[in-house]
Amino acid sequence: MPKIETVLSPALFDLYKENIENKIVIVIDILRATTTMIVALENGAKNIIPVEHLNDALSLRQDNFLIAGERNGVKVEGFDLGNSPQDFTPNVVANQTIVLSTTNGTRAIQASNGAKEIYAASFRNLDAMANYLINQQSDVILFCAGWKDKVNLEDTIFAGALTEILFDHEFQTNDDSTHMSLNLWKTAKKDLVGFLSEASHVKRFKTLHIESDLEVCLQMNTYNGILKL
Amino acid sequence: MPKIETVLSPALFDLYKENIENKIVIVIDILRATTTMIVALENGAKNIIPVEHLNDALSLRQDNFLIAGERNGVKVEGFDLGNSPQDFTPNVVANQTIVLSTTNGTRAIQASNGAKEIYAASFRNLDAMANYLINQQSDVILFCAGWKDKVNLEDTIFAGALTEILFDHEFQTNDDSTHMSLNLWKTAKKDLVGFLSEASHVKRFKTLHIESDLEVCLQMNTYNGILKL
Repeated sequence: MPKIETVLSPALFDLYKENIENKIVIVIDILRATTTMIVALENGAKNIIPVEHLNDALSLRQDNFLIAGERNGVKVEGFDLGNSPQDFTPNVVANQTIVLSTTNGTRAIQASNGAKEIYAASFRNLDAMANYLINQQSDVILFCAGWKDKVNLEDTIFAGALTEILFDHEFQTNDDSTHMSLNLWKTAKKDLVGFLSEASHVKRFKTLHIESDLEVCLQMNTYNGILKL
Repeated sequence: MPKIETVLSPALFDLYKENIENKIVIVIDILRATTTMIVALENGAKNIIPVEHLNDALSLRQDNFLIAGERNGVKVEGFDLGNSPQDFTPNVVANQTIVLSTTNGTRAIQASNGAKEIYAASFRNLDAMANYLINQQSDVILFCAGWKDKVNLEDTIFAGALTEILFDHEFQTNDDSTHMSLNLWKTAKKDLVGFLSEASHVKRFKTLHIESDLEVCLQMNTYNGILKL
């Protein structure tokens, strides 16, 4: 039966790399990189290219490419877009390729290099991601991007939400992190906004006056596709 | 107001080292190193000397010293004691100095070098440890020893139990790991054994036929002292 492992921080990813070529990795950066990617797809973007460094993003500039990225939650000067999902409207992103560099999400994607397959997921395509994994019946790593190598609440509870569905479809785990995220999700889902009001990242959002992004990032199953990286 | 931070794995400790000289570190290795240390004190041991390497332990051998340690959950050959708290009976440990080397707990203690103060704690002296910290009103790091750098359930919920008490006494946190451990504790405490039956380490105990240790490790407040390292 397929197994789930949950990586709570990029600093722990090396512990899970054994047989990575046989595992599907789901990269999770709910606030906001992987949510923003899914919103871009929802609104008609043709493709998403995640890159780690700002210079890599700029070097890809060409027609029908939009360069997007943030550092410490703020849009990079000279870029077309930041990392707020609300900027990725249909009239901006339709038929465009998005080159996205972010603080944590892109690093997690790069670290997953060598995996069987890599996907970015968010609450907006939770069921679609789960259904794909159920069909594959492959071992899976839920890779929380965290914040500067620290564990965060929002990525962890998304891992728990995905685990809850997969556990109903023959998936198993020997991994305490997976039990932790599932338990946290079961508490969190009763009042998602209330639960996350404790989160350090949500407090940071309030400081940056981007609270409305939070609502977008917690909307469930607005998109029925998945994003392979 | 004093702050709490929770380190879920030794692999994350470096992220919390800033101003470590002003922080009290509580090392947590519930199954079993720090529990065993507290049991030894309860039963009259004079002192506990944690060491990282097996050779360090042997080199300290002298009269009234007992050499104790395990690797991968099994007693080391040639040592006086393993790491099962049930071996540390009054007639064995009274007035003895215990030199203890274990897989994860001792490594966490060594890593804490440079902290303002370092303590080992367990459920058996939870209230005593909490009361000391409340009196000190100092910033504190709850350092979960984990299992080979992976996060584990039992250390995490102990951190949550300590946090629950400290939050009632002016302590605060900006740290998502601390919120996570507190939330997990609130669920776990309703049925501690049931909650931990999912834990990878508890399953390992069953394989090693040392399930009775688990009961000893979950007993609350049997000892009113604290252990400074």
